[in-house]
Amino acid sequence: MINKLVEKIKKTEAPIVVGLDPMLGYIPEQITEAAYKEYGANPDGAAEAVWRYNKGIVDAVCDLIPAVKPQIAMYEQFGIPGLVTFKKTVDYCKEKGLIVIGDIKRGDIGSTSAAYAAGHIGGVDIGGNYFRGFDEDFITVNPYFGTDGIKPFADVCKEEKRGMFILVKTSNPSSGEFQDRLIEGKPLYEHVASKVAEWGKDVMGEDYSYIGAVVGATYPEMGKVIREIMPKAYILVPGYGAQGGKGKDLVHFFNKDGLGAIVNSSRGIIAAYKQDKYSEFGPEGYADAARQAVVDMKDDLKQAVVK
Amino acid sequence: MINKLVEKIKKTEAPIVVGLDPMLGYIPEQITEAAYKEYGANPDGAAEAVWRYNKGIVDAVCDLIPAVKPQIAMYEQFGIPGLVTFKKTVDYCKEKGLIVIGDIKRGDIGSTSAAYAAGHIGGVDIGGNYFRGFDEDFITVNPYFGTDGIKPFADVCKEEKRGMFILVKTSNPSSGEFQDRLIEGKPLYEHVASKVAEWGKDVMGEDYSYIGAVVGATYPEMGKVIREIMPKAYILVPGYGAQGGKGKDLVHFFNKDGLGAIVNSSRGIIAAYKQDKYSEFGPEGYADAARQAVVDMKDDLKQAVVK
Repeated sequence: MINKLVEKIKKTEAPIVVGLDPMLGYIPEQITEAAYKEYGANPDGAAEAVWRYNKGIVDAVCDLIPAVKPQIAMYEQFGIPGLVTFKKTVDYCKEKGLIVIGDIKRGDIGSTSAAYAAGHIGGVDIGGNYFRGFDEDFITVNPYFGTDGIKPFADVCKEEKRGMFILVKTSNPSSGEFQDRLIEGKPLYEHVASKVAEWGKDVMGEDYSYIGAVVGATYPEMGKVIREIMPKAYILVPGYGAQGGKGKDLVHFFNKDGLGAIVNSSRGIIAAYKQDKYSEFGPEGYADAARQAVVDMKDDLKQAVVK
Repeated sequence: MINKLVEKIKKTEAPIVVGLDPMLGYIPEQITEAAYKEYGANPDGAAEAVWRYNKGIVDAVCDLIPAVKPQIAMYEQFGIPGLVTFKKTVDYCKEKGLIVIGDIKRGDIGSTSAAYAAGHIGGVDIGGNYFRGFDEDFITVNPYFGTDGIKPFADVCKEEKRGMFILVKTSNPSSGEFQDRLIEGKPLYEHVASKVAEWGKDVMGEDYSYIGAVVGATYPEMGKVIREIMPKAYILVPGYGAQGGKGKDLVHFFNKDGLGAIVNSSRGIIAAYKQDKYSEFGPEGYADAARQAVVDMKDDLKQAVVK
């Protein structure tokens, strides 16, 4: 799957992942009103509104980008109906040829990580048959448990040729509270990055490993160091746009081959119509605004990718 | 909710939480066969088998214990039908008067943590009405993001009088890989424990905070230090029984009031009938075996609680 991701990034010339993180407040009123009218102003109605909103965006941008990243929390907040929409979104995006990164940030002791891996990138054996749960192509994983919390995910990645991005340096303001603390002269995130490189060796695709890392766009200098520590790990970069990161800041996240990083934007694309810059599109044109925002982002990222 | 937890621990004299972490392999054949016959050998059938198995255990032990802890990964592995069973289990346990700790180990940047908090211990506003998603009483949370990943959970805890247990020192063998690394002379888990104490001050119940911590039974000496760092935080203790922890090792997890810790056992109780010790119960008597295992655990833990 990492080979397919690289190939699609080359083909689209867009190291971009669109974050499908739909807050109710982002969804144009005409969509929520119609969904509430049909299903009620309740979790079923909200989940339906999210689904229609997502579909509009995916249809508008799917030829421009290699991948999407639905944030499961935004679906989980509506309980079961929300997760039904999450699954529908995963399936629809795959139908449209997009690679799906499930932003689930799971992680636990070994036996529990194995269950999460089965549910998201693998499958379960029930009475001799194999069934897949949420069936994403990649997921995000939390490293706090160390190697034996990661290994079950790595095993499934290897078996299924799917992938994961392990949190190394997150994009939020307080990420340094623990991640930047010095251990033997190096910040914790560097130690995690070294482990990502080590874990990834055993699960290599052609040029990159099935095991990548999450490093926030908001910390470009740290991205530079982390890039060097794990040259074969793809970096999933959140924090671009709404969280403050800009294209030119991201030059060090990429390798000299122009690859090695894929940059996420969520709000900046899916709610682009709410920005002054795209206000001409209006709520009716939210999907076209998203498309324009992807085009602009692609342009902005050219400053980062030195070929 | 922390006050209710303390009260129920006092009343049952059992600082015990039963981990409802049903692996298919634990479930007696008579249950899986009946469920597969009715629903098919598929995720619906598996989820139904898990539900029947859980119900049997809950009915057998609910008068003895204060709380249960369903591990959401074990449900998530079956996709949507599994999560429907998770929700049904949460609701049923609450009906039976049990406190429910959703073992979800979520954690993310602020806006995403807010969505997880809404989905599990809070609710969402949809068209002016308030809806709850999974509706647990407590959840477990991962600290890797630092304060701004924790605050949205803490805010909901305060508003809803619910609670959370933050991972400090996990029970798995490789937990030390990052958690034990020294930062300014102290292991990372002590720094996290200090933060738990700090975060918890603002969300106090009567004697204990709504914000507790997870500390593995497998690391009793570390438990002692952590107990001192955060005297007002309840400790949720996994790793007892099947993972190797014993009652007498847990004395330092408790405060002098005989309170301050609640010990989880999953496999050791829900699959007790598979142990030699309880083999007389047989698969048909799995729920009675679970009850006996709770009685024995209660007895074993008396060695830990000095009154």
